[in-house]
Amino acid sequence: RIDGQRLWRRLMALAQIGATPAGGNRRLALTELDGQGRDLVTQWARELGCSIRVDAIGNIFMRRAGRLDLPAVMTGSHIDTQPTGGKFDGNFGVLSGIEVLSTLHQAGVVTDRPLEVAIWTNEEGSRFVPVMMGSGVYCGAFTLASALAAVDLDGISVATALDAIGYAGSDHIETPACYFEAHIEQGPVLEAHDKVIGVVEAALGQRWYTVTVKGMEAHAGPTPMAMRRDALLCSARLIAEVNAIALANAPNGRGTVGWIENYPNSRNVIPGQVRFSVDLRAADETTLGGMDAALRAACARAAADAHLAIDVEQVVYFPAQAFDATLIASVRQASDSLGLSWMPAVSGAGHDAVYVARVAPTAMIFVPCKDGISHNEIESAEPEHLEAGCNVLLRAMLAAARA
Amino acid sequence: RIDGQRLWRRLMALAQIGATPAGGNRRLALTELDGQGRDLVTQWARELGCSIRVDAIGNIFMRRAGRLDLPAVMTGSHIDTQPTGGKFDGNFGVLSGIEVLSTLHQAGVVTDRPLEVAIWTNEEGSRFVPVMMGSGVYCGAFTLASALAAVDLDGISVATALDAIGYAGSDHIETPACYFEAHIEQGPVLEAHDKVIGVVEAALGQRWYTVTVKGMEAHAGPTPMAMRRDALLCSARLIAEVNAIALANAPNGRGTVGWIENYPNSRNVIPGQVRFSVDLRAADETTLGGMDAALRAACARAAADAHLAIDVEQVVYFPAQAFDATLIASVRQASDSLGLSWMPAVSGAGHDAVYVARVAPTAMIFVPCKDGISHNEIESAEPEHLEAGCNVLLRAMLAAARA
Ligand SMILES: NC(=O)NCCC(=O)O
Ligand SMILES: NC(=O)NCCC(=O)O
Repeated sequence: RIDGQRLWRRLMALAQIGATPAGGNRRLALTELDGQGRDLVTQWARELGCSIRVDAIGNIFMRRAGRLDLPAVMTGSHIDTQPTGGKFDGNFGVLSGIEVLSTLHQAGVVTDRPLEVAIWTNEEGSRFVPVMMGSGVYCGAFTLASALAAVDLDGISVATALDAIGYAGSDHIETPACYFEAHIEQGPVLEAHDKVIGVVEAALGQRWYTVTVKGMEAHAGPTPMAMRRDALLCSARLIAEVNAIALANAPNGRGTVGWIENYPNSRNVIPGQVRFSVDLRAADETTLGGMDAALRAACARAAADAHLAIDVEQVVYFPAQAFDATLIASVRQASDSLGLSWMPAVSGAGHDAVYVARVAPTAMIFVPCKDGISHNEIESAEPEHLEAGCNVLLRAMLAAARA
Repeated sequence: RIDGQRLWRRLMALAQIGATPAGGNRRLALTELDGQGRDLVTQWARELGCSIRVDAIGNIFMRRAGRLDLPAVMTGSHIDTQPTGGKFDGNFGVLSGIEVLSTLHQAGVVTDRPLEVAIWTNEEGSRFVPVMMGSGVYCGAFTLASALAAVDLDGISVATALDAIGYAGSDHIETPACYFEAHIEQGPVLEAHDKVIGVVEAALGQRWYTVTVKGMEAHAGPTPMAMRRDALLCSARLIAEVNAIALANAPNGRGTVGWIENYPNSRNVIPGQVRFSVDLRAADETTLGGMDAALRAACARAAADAHLAIDVEQVVYFPAQAFDATLIASVRQASDSLGLSWMPAVSGAGHDAVYVARVAPTAMIFVPCKDGISHNEIESAEPEHLEAGCNVLLRAMLAAARA
């Protein structure tokens, strides 16, 4: 059994780096704070005798040697956060891995296979797009070069930011034997069903876009309503359409506009250009494809109606991903053997596990979070639930580590 | 007759200060560039033997003495611009005044009454709210203290910014005998009717607001559509409502959302808080009052429907303003005597003249601008039209300057 208090202490220690007054975490990918978080976690791993490797996109791999020279059993997640993020999203998965290693270290257990804990770079996708960047590169979802060239809103590239915090590595990391990821659910289902463990069977597919609406700046007073080409008004209508598209694809269809940039953004100027993000999600390819078509049709209609130019650029795409049946069964068994209540779950969020599942058998373990709220400074989780999830991870990893 | 080429040369020289690559002007109120513009124009006035005075809100008054110690005939406008503004909005009115003084100086004419050219502070209202700040303080529409305390988005106050550019004065300026303001129309009506001069009879009333929508940040993936309290989606619906309110009050009703701020503005976070501006305009108090009520009702409905808190704060208000019948007639006569085509006009924009009309007889002279486009870097006007408008100003001022 893992030490739930040690796990909690480490979660709270990591949460000090980029702590916000509202009790959350702001540790954007590849900032100085992210660097400090990486330093802290790798320090803990070193104290357990782990070797540390870093690859070219800055993913960190902390390895505890096994008896045999076989592919490792890997776990991990991310420690970057949203601009107004919480203390558990990502951090729980990484520190659960470290806790598993600490428990084995203390008990003097040596596994057949090596165990490896990964910190994936820029999972959140809020400073740099695409989301799940480090695991995406590792699994070949897109190229290293394209990821290194991505820039934030200030024009700083991933390559530059990695250099600045000293995490531009060059290690080549073999494909693991299998991969587990523990994570808070980030949704309300476990809580609603009063279950402690979500046995994750699949994750929703996602398509993200940058939509650019080009209108015509003009004076908010003398310009007659009929003569306007108002880029913000047109965008507002499209934001409502994105919501309608999601509702038309219930129960799993999701549609969100989280980011918007208005130009020139002056009170008495009719906006001339607006850029905004669209995030569409669905449980299967047919539905997600239909939502994509509906978005493009809505934009084409809006452009024609309002005499504006609208550009729709897809910036993230991955299909819904099923996890490995054998590993799923192993998570279920671990939960049962620990006497924990569980239910099957579908992940509404993307996770590094979604990309790793392309190269190795993968499964995820969810624990509840308060009111289903995540990507919010008030994100909260019960110590007992976190401890339970980590115990499930320990058993599932031990089972997989047998040669 | 004024010298149209000199007027044009000065317009182009002033437009060098804060020139943008797209051919426009970015000289926000009380920035260093605004200071440079003020220095340039006052230098020209000094060369004409004018005395220069500056009041506590930074309005500049450039006076050419008359034969008699009577209240002055005043003209003026502003030289601050929109973030993506043009070369003529405001600048034309100020430099027309300087051109009138230059013409009289050259001809050795001394008028009975003094003539005075004003540069009003922060007319545009895009760096600091309220709009028409300098003339508003001068005419008692709001207090000096409240204006000095207004801050920009970086938290810099008007008082600090005035100090920084050396235009925090202390002169007391008497009420003028009357006030004229020449300005580009900023709308399409004169061009559509092929007229050179707009004899402005009134200006639309305005109400501006800051609307704050408070929802709940949550994850764009796992959060079911029905559980969301999306501040941006709610704001998008309100932006469409603002447009509908204006259309329902045709032909003079105007409604614009020019500014929006989304929080935390991350692609995969359901927005938790949005602030946006609303700018409503109408030709009479009843209509404007009805639009205000419609906006507040729409916000109350939206708050109830979407389980969000919405705050509506009015930040600018002035009723529609009629100009002085005698001065209007004088502008008409001047146009006729110069053989210029003219038509009556209503100003859709606010102008410093709208506030000055509260304390002194006031009239305005419009000239066409290309395609009716203003508050845009491509704002453009014909040299002949500008010259014609300035000649009308000269005649109207000379007539008013007789004791
Ligand atoms: N788990 C998580 O918050 N991932 C971010 C990617 C997403 O938006 O699904
Ligand atoms: N003339 C002008 O552009 N004034 C700005 C104030 C307004 O928005 O009406």
